[in-house]
Amino acid sequence: MINELVKQIQKKQAPIVVGLDPMLDFIPQQITDKAFAEFGKTPAGVGEAVWQYNKGIVDAVCDLVPAVKPQIAMYEQFGIEGLIAFKKTVDYCKEKGLVVIGDVKRGDIGSTSAAYATAHLGKIRIGDQSFEGFGEDFATVNPYLGSDGIKPFLEVCKQEKKGIFVLVKTSNPSSGEFQDRLIDGKPLYEHVAAAVSEWGQDLMGDSYSYVGAVTGATYPEMGKVLRQLMPKAYLLVPGYGAQGGKGEDLKAFFNADGLGAIVNSSRGIIAAWKKEPYLEKFGAAGYADAARAAVLDMKEDINSAIL
Amino acid sequence: MINELVKQIQKKQAPIVVGLDPMLDFIPQQITDKAFAEFGKTPAGVGEAVWQYNKGIVDAVCDLVPAVKPQIAMYEQFGIEGLIAFKKTVDYCKEKGLVVIGDVKRGDIGSTSAAYATAHLGKIRIGDQSFEGFGEDFATVNPYLGSDGIKPFLEVCKQEKKGIFVLVKTSNPSSGEFQDRLIDGKPLYEHVAAAVSEWGQDLMGDSYSYVGAVTGATYPEMGKVLRQLMPKAYLLVPGYGAQGGKGEDLKAFFNADGLGAIVNSSRGIIAAWKKEPYLEKFGAAGYADAARAAVLDMKEDINSAIL
Repeated sequence: MINELVKQIQKKQAPIVVGLDPMLDFIPQQITDKAFAEFGKTPAGVGEAVWQYNKGIVDAVCDLVPAVKPQIAMYEQFGIEGLIAFKKTVDYCKEKGLVVIGDVKRGDIGSTSAAYATAHLGKIRIGDQSFEGFGEDFATVNPYLGSDGIKPFLEVCKQEKKGIFVLVKTSNPSSGEFQDRLIDGKPLYEHVAAAVSEWGQDLMGDSYSYVGAVTGATYPEMGKVLRQLMPKAYLLVPGYGAQGGKGEDLKAFFNADGLGAIVNSSRGIIAAWKKEPYLEKFGAAGYADAARAAVLDMKEDINSAIL
Repeated sequence: MINELVKQIQKKQAPIVVGLDPMLDFIPQQITDKAFAEFGKTPAGVGEAVWQYNKGIVDAVCDLVPAVKPQIAMYEQFGIEGLIAFKKTVDYCKEKGLVVIGDVKRGDIGSTSAAYATAHLGKIRIGDQSFEGFGEDFATVNPYLGSDGIKPFLEVCKQEKKGIFVLVKTSNPSSGEFQDRLIDGKPLYEHVAAAVSEWGQDLMGDSYSYVGAVTGATYPEMGKVLRQLMPKAYLLVPGYGAQGGKGEDLKAFFNADGLGAIVNSSRGIIAAWKKEPYLEKFGAAGYADAARAAVLDMKEDINSAIL
C-alpha cells in the first residue's frame, strides 16, 4: 500500500491528504436539514449528515489527491451511528481509488494491539470466512507502550501489505511536555524515530517502508532531523493551515526526490466554505467546490515550496 | 464516580476489576453455536456470542466486584457488530450497578481529544437533546501528546463527574523502552506521574481524584514510588494473574488505608473455565460459575496480602 500511496502522489503531483474530520458546525444546513427530516435530530440523523457531507467532498477532490485521513474520534463521538458513517466513508473512498489513512491513534499491547490491528488493517476469521472490521489502508499508532504495542501491527501490515504511521512528534503546542525531554542528550521523539526506522527495516516497499511516522508541520526545525533519522519512512505531516504550518515550512520533511512526506489539511479544506476567500465565491451550497478550490490552492502552496 | 468506585470497593471488600476482554476461543461452544445458528457465522453472530458470554459472567460476578473493564479493542476487531456488543455490555453492567472502566487508551489533541472524551464519558448535543456515545464511567487515556490531549478529558470529567486513568507505567515487557528512560535523573513514567498528580488537583472526589493512573502489577518496585508520587490518584493495576503479577506484589500499590488501587484480571477470570482447578469442577457449561470462583480466589489472594 505504501507503493500505491507513492504512485498516487506522483501521478497526482500532490503530496496532500485531506483530513475528513467532520464537526457538526462544518456541515452546511441544507445537508443537516435533509438528514434530520429523514432520521430525526438523532445520532442516526447526524450520521447520515456526516456521510452525505463527506461524500460531497470526496466526489469533489478525489481526482486531485492521493489520500484521505478520516479522524475516527469525530465519528466515535456519535456512538455506533457515527462509526457506521466512518465505515461508509472508508468504503466509499476506497471505491473512488483513494488511499485511506485511519487516524485512530490506537496503541495497546500483545493480543489487544493485535485486535486493534485486525480492526483497522486486517481481517477477522469466523468459521471459513474472513471479514474486515473498518478496512483502512494505513492506521496511526501511539508508541508509548513500546514495541509490544507496535509488533502486532507490523505482523498485520506484512500480511495485508498495509502500513502504519507512528506518532513521533505531534503538531500540538504541548507535544514537547514529554516528547521533547532529553534522554541521553536527545529528545524522546528522536528515540522514537530511531525505533520507527528499525521497525520499518523488514517491511520495505519499493522505495519507502510500510512503517511511517507522524511529524507535525508546526515544528519544521525538528522535521529536518527526523527526516534524516528515518530516511525510508514516509512522514505524515499534520498541522498545515489551521494549526499554523505553512508551505515554506514543509521543505524539511521531504527527501531530495520530492517524496517522503504527505501533508494533511482537515478544516482548511473541508470547512473552506466557511472562510474567505472561499465563502463569498462558493457559500454553503458550494461547500464541495470550495473544498476543491482549497485543495488546488494548497497544492500550489506546497509544490512551489518543495519543487 | 470516583466516590462511587471507592464506596463499592469498600462495600464489596474487593479492590478488583474484571476485564471483559472476550476472545473468540474463550467463549464456550454452546454459546457460539446458538449465536451462529441465529445470526450465521458472521460478525453479527460473533457480536451476539460475545454479548451472551459477557452477560453470563456479569450476572455471576456483579455482587462480588465493584467494577468491570471492557477492553474495546476486543470488540472493535469485529467492526460495527462488535461495538454494538461493547455498548450492550456497558449498558448492562451499569444496569447491574457496576462501575464501568472503558479500556480505550485514547489520546489525541484539542477538539479531537474532546471528541474522544465525549464519545466515552460525555454527551453529544443534537438540537435540544443530548445523546450518549458509549457512556462508560471511566476511560483509560494515553499521555504521549501532553496536556493538550488530557485537558479536554478533564473538562468532560468535571462536567459529568466521571474519571480517567492515564497510562503511566504499563504492565508489558517492553514498556521500559520509552517509559523507563531517564530524564533529569528520573524515568519518564515518573514525569508522567507528576503530571497526573497535577492534572488531578482540581478534580477531587471525597478522598481520591477523578484522575487516576495505570501502573502495571508486574513492576511492584515502581508501584511504591508511583504510589508516593500520586497519593490522591487511584491506581488501576493490570497484569495480575495471566501476566505474572501476584497478590503479594500488590501491597506497594495500596495506601495505608487499604484503598488507592484496583487490580484488574481479565482472562484469569473470564476464561477461568479453560484451566485447572476450574475446568474439572465447572467445565464449559459452568463458565460463569468458574468466573465467580476465580473472583473469590482472587479476592482472598489480594486481601490476604494487603489487609
